[in-house]
Amino acid sequence: MKRPNTVQWKAADGSIHLKPDEVLDSPLPGFLDIIDQTLLPGKLERRQLCTAEEIFHAIRTLAVRGAPAIGCAAALGLAACAQRFHAANRTEFLARLAETADYLESSRPTAVNLAWALNRCCSAVRLSEETDPAGLTRLLLGEALAILDEDIALCRAIGQHGLSLIKNNMGILTHCNAGALATGGCGTALAPVYAAWEAGLNIRVFSDETRPLLQGARLTAWELSYSGIDVTTICDSMAAQVMREGRVDLVIVGADRVAANGDAANKIGTYQLAIAANYHRIPFYVAIPYSTIDRSIPDGSRIPIEQRSESEITTFNGMRISPETIKVYNPAFDVTPASLITGYITEKGVVSAI
Amino acid sequence: MKRPNTVQWKAADGSIHLKPDEVLDSPLPGFLDIIDQTLLPGKLERRQLCTAEEIFHAIRTLAVRGAPAIGCAAALGLAACAQRFHAANRTEFLARLAETADYLESSRPTAVNLAWALNRCCSAVRLSEETDPAGLTRLLLGEALAILDEDIALCRAIGQHGLSLIKNNMGILTHCNAGALATGGCGTALAPVYAAWEAGLNIRVFSDETRPLLQGARLTAWELSYSGIDVTTICDSMAAQVMREGRVDLVIVGADRVAANGDAANKIGTYQLAIAANYHRIPFYVAIPYSTIDRSIPDGSRIPIEQRSESEITTFNGMRISPETIKVYNPAFDVTPASLITGYITEKGVVSAI
Repeated sequence: MKRPNTVQWKAADGSIHLKPDEVLDSPLPGFLDIIDQTLLPGKLERRQLCTAEEIFHAIRTLAVRGAPAIGCAAALGLAACAQRFHAANRTEFLARLAETADYLESSRPTAVNLAWALNRCCSAVRLSEETDPAGLTRLLLGEALAILDEDIALCRAIGQHGLSLIKNNMGILTHCNAGALATGGCGTALAPVYAAWEAGLNIRVFSDETRPLLQGARLTAWELSYSGIDVTTICDSMAAQVMREGRVDLVIVGADRVAANGDAANKIGTYQLAIAANYHRIPFYVAIPYSTIDRSIPDGSRIPIEQRSESEITTFNGMRISPETIKVYNPAFDVTPASLITGYITEKGVVSAI
Repeated sequence: MKRPNTVQWKAADGSIHLKPDEVLDSPLPGFLDIIDQTLLPGKLERRQLCTAEEIFHAIRTLAVRGAPAIGCAAALGLAACAQRFHAANRTEFLARLAETADYLESSRPTAVNLAWALNRCCSAVRLSEETDPAGLTRLLLGEALAILDEDIALCRAIGQHGLSLIKNNMGILTHCNAGALATGGCGTALAPVYAAWEAGLNIRVFSDETRPLLQGARLTAWELSYSGIDVTTICDSMAAQVMREGRVDLVIVGADRVAANGDAANKIGTYQLAIAANYHRIPFYVAIPYSTIDRSIPDGSRIPIEQRSESEITTFNGMRISPETIKVYNPAFDVTPASLITGYITEKGVVSAI
């Protein structure tokens, strides 16, 4: 199945390497290869990134986005930079490594996966007893590729478990983009969709356009149609109408953070969608790896809601759509209470509570 | 209170006439004076329309929109045209009248108020025994101004009855635009808001932006802020979140058609909003004149849902936001079942059933 690979590592000869074993023998230096999501859906263009500045800029400007994809890109990006450290010894290598990781981490300070992936790479290098800079470089790349590999495996496992919920001729509704473009693999919310498609099931997907930034209309619709999956874009306000028409059998969304009681923070609009699904008695699932669960937070009320710029709502493509003086409320996320969530699709299985 | 007057009649000297009595002595010819809504919210510009072609074009291009406002504009527009019929006798006047009315009616074939207003004007002229073309012209203008006057009175009555639902410091949420810009008066859904404001109550309004055509962000936000009322624009998908935060005490929307059992067809997104209000136990009211009730339709399932162009969703300001190959579903309306409607604010009072 054709599917967009958001984040890849390419060796200097252009060959793609996804497993650490293959990489150990690959010709160095290599580079981080990404889909530039800012150009979608108009243009599918890949970009090869080598320098820390290029990688920082790609993350900052959302050329690569989605928490798992950012983590993979940062780790592989760090490995790409290390190819050019030209360090004389281990001490020099570790200094350059820490400096570069700090810089990359500052590209989007709020993304948890970013710091996590960079820390994991740095720790792996620091804990090794390797002294040769070339060996440390390979070790770093191995760790970064392991992160990508694990992300791919997580997505695949979520997909396989979610597949158990999908029957032939089902209509599946999703919100925002938690697909291949948001991860190193085939996504979280969209993983079961891809799995169903690969299993030969006939499915129809409804994709909320997801105001204000239109990730559904721009990204989810694009990646599913790229793969040949039947997808229909609707405005966020149309979801209840489509449900009423009997065309939605299942809702699957991703989540940015899940509290210990199962309350799930996700893109604004998810909560309203869950209420509509509940009213129509349509199963509502949240697809997440277990790492998204934050056991330190007892319930969703403790999850802070990020407020974003008014201009995301008041302007579009440079044109003002609201009066200049108008007040705007623009929360980036909302919290769906566990009571509205039928279950969670995780890498370990589908569970009704977490 | 400063409030935008969508549709007015101006005599040749520029004086505004809203009552037939005043008009009978006004210097002819006069003209139809409208706010060009296509320029809002960027620019508040009035346009003076005299010819049938100008009036046809204004209605067709949504320079004037909203079913009641279209009815008023068509009637006053017909009267403006009649000033220049230069008919030699009654027969010639009636022929020109029928021809012009038919032409204006074809500007938007689906708007019920348009045909109703034009028919009413033509009937008034036909049923009179006046033979002098100048007398017929005055009679026609009198009927058109009566339609405008009645619309203003209907809106005011809806506002006064709706006021009984509003208390100080309330938050009121609305969808689309059923305000002064959509009627000859102060609106239907927004009439109680204006009444509360005039009564000195402190209120806050949340205006759904109303995708895909953004009537809420462009028009409702503009007309309320123009009048000095506290209004906040939100994306349609944020309504449930604002409700959850305890900031909404009341939802008021308009309706395009209400079935005999109380099911209400209104702008797409209204149904989803009603479900969210119901979940949060927030009162949900539909503000309508009795003329909006269609007793010939037993329930909402018989109300046909108009499907509109895909380009309303796939493009914005000329820029493509969805992939070219993507399917789009774009129903212009949805039907909210009576079970989700707390009551109806009408010109005769607030009723829990109709």
